[in-house]
Amino acid sequence: MPEIIQTKVKYSFLDDYSEGAHPQLLNALIASNNAQQAGYGNDEYSEEARQYIRRHLQNEEVGVFFVPSGTSANAISIAACLRPHESVIAPSTGHIVTRETGAVESAGHKIINVIPEAGKLTPTLIAKALAENWHYPHMAKPRLVYISNATEIGTIYTKDEFRAIKRLCEQHDLLLFVDGARIGTALASDKNDMSWNDVLELTDIFWIGGTKNGALLGEAIVVKDPKLARDFEFYVKQHGSLLAKGRIMGAQFAELFRDDLYSDLARQANVAARKLSRSITDAGFTLVAESETNQVFALLPRPLVDRLQQDFSFYLWETRGEDWVVVRLLTTWATNELQLAKFGNILLTWDSK
Amino acid sequence: MPEIIQTKVKYSFLDDYSEGAHPQLLNALIASNNAQQAGYGNDEYSEEARQYIRRHLQNEEVGVFFVPSGTSANAISIAACLRPHESVIAPSTGHIVTRETGAVESAGHKIINVIPEAGKLTPTLIAKALAENWHYPHMAKPRLVYISNATEIGTIYTKDEFRAIKRLCEQHDLLLFVDGARIGTALASDKNDMSWNDVLELTDIFWIGGTKNGALLGEAIVVKDPKLARDFEFYVKQHGSLLAKGRIMGAQFAELFRDDLYSDLARQANVAARKLSRSITDAGFTLVAESETNQVFALLPRPLVDRLQQDFSFYLWETRGEDWVVVRLLTTWATNELQLAKFGNILLTWDSK
Amino acid sequence: MPEIIQTKVKYSFLDDYSEGAHPQLLNALIASNNAQQAGYGNDEYSEEARQYIRRHLQNEEVGVFFVPSGTSANAISIAACLRPHESVIAPSTGHIVTRETGAVESAGHKIINVIPEAGKLTPTLIAKALAENWHYPHMAKPRLVYISNATEIGTIYTKDEFRAIKRLCEQHDLLLFVDGARIGTALASDKNDMSWNDVLELTDIFWIGGTKNGALLGEAIVVKDPKLARDFEFYVKQHGSLLAKGRIMGAQFAELFRDDLYSDLARQANVAARKLSRSITDAGFTLVAESETNQVFALLPRPLVDRLQQDFSFYLWETRGEDWVVVRLLTTWATNELQLAKFGNILLTWDSK
Amino acid sequence: MPEIIQTKVKYSFLDDYSEGAHPQLLNALIASNNAQQAGYGNDEYSEEARQYIRRHLQNEEVGVFFVPSGTSANAISIAACLRPHESVIAPSTGHIVTRETGAVESAGHKIINVIPEAGKLTPTLIAKALAENWHYPHMAKPRLVYISNATEIGTIYTKDEFRAIKRLCEQHDLLLFVDGARIGTALASDKNDMSWNDVLELTDIFWIGGTKNGALLGEAIVVKDPKLARDFEFYVKQHGSLLAKGRIMGAQFAELFRDDLYSDLARQANVAARKLSRSITDAGFTLVAESETNQVFALLPRPLVDRLQQDFSFYLWETRGEDWVVVRLLTTWATNELQLAKFGNILLTWDSK
Repeated sequence: MPEIIQTKVKYSFLDDYSEGAHPQLLNALIASNNAQQAGYGNDEYSEEARQYIRRHLQNEEVGVFFVPSGTSANAISIAACLRPHESVIAPSTGHIVTRETGAVESAGHKIINVIPEAGKLTPTLIAKALAENWHYPHMAKPRLVYISNATEIGTIYTKDEFRAIKRLCEQHDLLLFVDGARIGTALASDKNDMSWNDVLELTDIFWIGGTKNGALLGEAIVVKDPKLARDFEFYVKQHGSLLAKGRIMGAQFAELFRDDLYSDLARQANVAARKLSRSITDAGFTLVAESETNQVFALLPRPLVDRLQQDFSFYLWETRGEDWVVVRLLTTWATNELQLAKFGNILLTWDSK
Repeated sequence: MPEIIQTKVKYSFLDDYSEGAHPQLLNALIASNNAQQAGYGNDEYSEEARQYIRRHLQNEEVGVFFVPSGTSANAISIAACLRPHESVIAPSTGHIVTRETGAVESAGHKIINVIPEAGKLTPTLIAKALAENWHYPHMAKPRLVYISNATEIGTIYTKDEFRAIKRLCEQHDLLLFVDGARIGTALASDKNDMSWNDVLELTDIFWIGGTKNGALLGEAIVVKDPKLARDFEFYVKQHGSLLAKGRIMGAQFAELFRDDLYSDLARQANVAARKLSRSITDAGFTLVAESETNQVFALLPRPLVDRLQQDFSFYLWETRGEDWVVVRLLTTWATNELQLAKFGNILLTWDSK
Repeated sequence: MPEIIQTKVKYSFLDDYSEGAHPQLLNALIASNNAQQAGYGNDEYSEEARQYIRRHLQNEEVGVFFVPSGTSANAISIAACLRPHESVIAPSTGHIVTRETGAVESAGHKIINVIPEAGKLTPTLIAKALAENWHYPHMAKPRLVYISNATEIGTIYTKDEFRAIKRLCEQHDLLLFVDGARIGTALASDKNDMSWNDVLELTDIFWIGGTKNGALLGEAIVVKDPKLARDFEFYVKQHGSLLAKGRIMGAQFAELFRDDLYSDLARQANVAARKLSRSITDAGFTLVAESETNQVFALLPRPLVDRLQQDFSFYLWETRGEDWVVVRLLTTWATNELQLAKFGNILLTWDSK
Repeated sequence: MPEIIQTKVKYSFLDDYSEGAHPQLLNALIASNNAQQAGYGNDEYSEEARQYIRRHLQNEEVGVFFVPSGTSANAISIAACLRPHESVIAPSTGHIVTRETGAVESAGHKIINVIPEAGKLTPTLIAKALAENWHYPHMAKPRLVYISNATEIGTIYTKDEFRAIKRLCEQHDLLLFVDGARIGTALASDKNDMSWNDVLELTDIFWIGGTKNGALLGEAIVVKDPKLARDFEFYVKQHGSLLAKGRIMGAQFAELFRDDLYSDLARQANVAARKLSRSITDAGFTLVAESETNQVFALLPRPLVDRLQQDFSFYLWETRGEDWVVVRLLTTWATNELQLAKFGNILLTWDSK
């Protein structure tokens, strides 16, 4: 069970939502404030944002819907896709399984938990879940595969991995849904070979996380099936996620996707993670896994961890024996260079005696 | 069926969410932007806002929870209060009945529709609904009374009316829940005799609307019962309404309730409605009802309505014969004096020939 | 509010489920008891029953599913037809509105209440409900019309009335669903001009009530759309209505539809109601409405009602002034001739002094 | 994935619901058929059955409710116990997890899957699940522990095991719920040391399965908490499980618990399993586990399995290499002695050449 250590004066590597908005997004909000605008997403800013996102996706038709949180993005998308007797196949580490207070179940749907490999599902794992859920109508019918990219532990899917999953899904009439809370850092990863258009083509529905990548709030759900997109706003409204002043999300997403700020911010987060990783290995310590995005997992001696906690807050992920601890460190577009240097310096000058 | 007439260049009296944030709230957001803050409502701004609201309510203990929309405020509050077999008594004009896409039913609860008087429920009407829902266990069990103050047509409840409803509720083990999307204009009304503390004392759970009274988004749910308040955040999270960067609501509500800006803004909206009313009667036209808050219903000849629509957008509420139309005009804290004057001038100089 | 008067020794005209099974059905159950049978509706009796019902419907393909109660028949059928944001249009007197503990809402769906005419919906009434539920996506989307035949007050729909409703439904992409708890007495009514095949052709989904027409339990849901029928068993199972020993419903329905026992029993109930009606008018009293099926509503002086209650139990439906009461009397296939005669005799010999 | 082999002429060891009713229960049904009875469980037979069950439980006050199926018993009990944000801890082999089409989730509740030991939960396993579901309010709150006795693989809990689980539940404010589909064979097991009263005392809510132990349908839910019992019928009705002619379950349960028929039938099932076990070991084959109730798991060579399938139907549970198969054989109160002998004879005379 991870243990949170945090006090306000410390610099936080805890998560990717401790910051406010990126200054450009804040300015966009300020600029949008003065005019009257139509409500409920019919404002000019939301329309602009939808157009910019469609341009990135290279598809002018696709439905784009803004919602205030990741939990609502997941719950709405899944509720919109499934009939009452249909279930979700998800990794047991998935956000919908572990951190959404049963929101998917509260909308009536069973989640079939699959133990993932490196946080990821594979065609083999999905096929096994299908094989175990065969006894109709006594078992709920698997209909949608949920994955996160980047995953909850920071790994990403390659295009080949996506293709293989999508092929299996098509063979078994399964929809593929991607939780994109961290899709920015995934697509900005050195290991990534997916384009925005690939994501669109290789999934049925996915969302683009704003909250963890520069916005104050907001996620953009992308719905490929026009029939599903036509009624999608009903689900958004029914879940309490159709904000009256839609400009608050529209103005921020327009800014993120007008040019390529969204990718830039994600890349900054990844670069910061790389610097952090290097400072750890330079000081002679070990990474539990090479960082693919903006999450760094390091194995550190407990006294050093105690020392670091005087100045920084972060998760203690797990203990290894009595003397060692795996810590999780998250970086963002806003990660402070000086703080990175200070962190590295403590490591470098650490004398274990 | 009301008909919406709107183009972007017209000045809007359509609703109370066409504006951005009040400048003070925008400044508060800007000021809150730079520091790292704990997530999910554990930030300093949200804590400050909770304290200020409790001070206004004269109760240091009460639970206060911020959610992004009115629909989520209603759905969460009702889901938190009811067991699956329990139902809601509500006016058939209530927002949960007419404008929330069945969100309450989607959480599993039946709403017993009562035809209201002037948009309001009375003890007699509630007692009749109870009498008709007696056949247990074949009928869902009424457990919560839902009312709005101000109502959806702009009328307000007096303290005596509240007391009478609360007494009946207590006799029948019913909870009283107030949708406070417009509670600002209600408490700022000339006809109001309720204090914030009265609202707290005479209800079981209610919410304070930010979106319609100066905020970009956000409603504050006030939960009196400590047992219910203890688990309330689970409901907020499960409904996708626990925003990661809670400061976005906290900073605005702190500003609204630091001093008395919330009341000031509501009063401005009501004053604008009074001016609008006076310009209508001064020009010799009739109000359908005296305005109690920020909604004005006027009976105007159709050609005049056509003329007004060239410059203003508003709802055509209903037609009276071939020649007359009832229009609904909404004012807010941001209603423009010059536009009010222009509107009045068109009325005054209207020559029916 | 109707008042129930009942003690065990009295003969009951209260409802149509006070009896056990019709003797032929009981014998069928006994005969089915000895052999091993496959579970969950895959037994030979259920298969036989499905074939017999299809023969009556003149359609060899239609899906037929047995469930144990009317509430489960309604809840399952509606849950199977609707997406989460879709609503039901129903008469405010409908069983799903008044006597099912919010089961439809508990599956997530809003019911739009329409005040009926003689217990029935009309195209005009439905069109009005559609006109009032226009504001998408803020209002749930009407998708299914629920009616009962016979209605909850014993009236029936003619073929012309059905056709007109079905036409309107098709124009507005609405499904038509018939609660057939009392479809036996409806089709056996002197006023009926519908065949079983007409019911199938003019609806999208309906059910045939066994419980109120000779069976110990069981209703047969008929699903016309093959795509919906294919997954229908999942809904039955998910709602706890897929009985392991399906023979208990199969054997009874096979008996009801092997020849025409179902119609015979319904006709007996209607004939008993006609006799009861005649004994009331012969004695000089008034029927509130002419009985179309097996429900009789009579206006009787209160002292006479008191006298009748010494020997019979029935509903006091409403009071008319101080001296008169409307009573509701229900007959069934099992209504006892001697008790009918006894009831009539009390009326005939009543001396109001 | 188990493979079902079944044709109608074969004798079935597939399950415990292939038979009709036990003759005494059928006679009770016949005897109950002729009188008028009050509806919805208010009949004399249901009342009698409740009294008899309470007598067995040595508690005159406890709530007893009859429902038609195990899935409805589980879904209703859990829905009645939980608030929307509360979750269930269950073994991953539990019936609610594997064979109820997501009924618990469809009522809104998350199930935390725990890999069991011999089909059973232990305090250690439950404590681990609690430890992993700590992050409130982001995780649903564990509130109820679901176990089956006998389990889905035929093992049973001892009184010490029950006590230990109950103690842990009390420490963590968890309710303990027992799925008693097979509680008859559990309490009749040679290994059992629990009385009916122990079951009542050591759980919060449980049910007594009728369907698998002599009845045509019906399970009796026992609700200890008087506050919960008071409203319990609403849940039964809302889930479509309050049968109008309640006598159909009442008469059977009255017969089962008038004396001790319920235990007798379960003991017969267990005795048959013991005979079957002995005939397997006498023939020199191996049991995968010693049978604790009425389920026998045997390891047999594939050609012998093929031979047996000519005359018997049963589950092929799993394959062991190319040559061996684990088969599951279920016995009941109705298991035929001659068929047992025939089965044993095939084993004994099997010549593997």
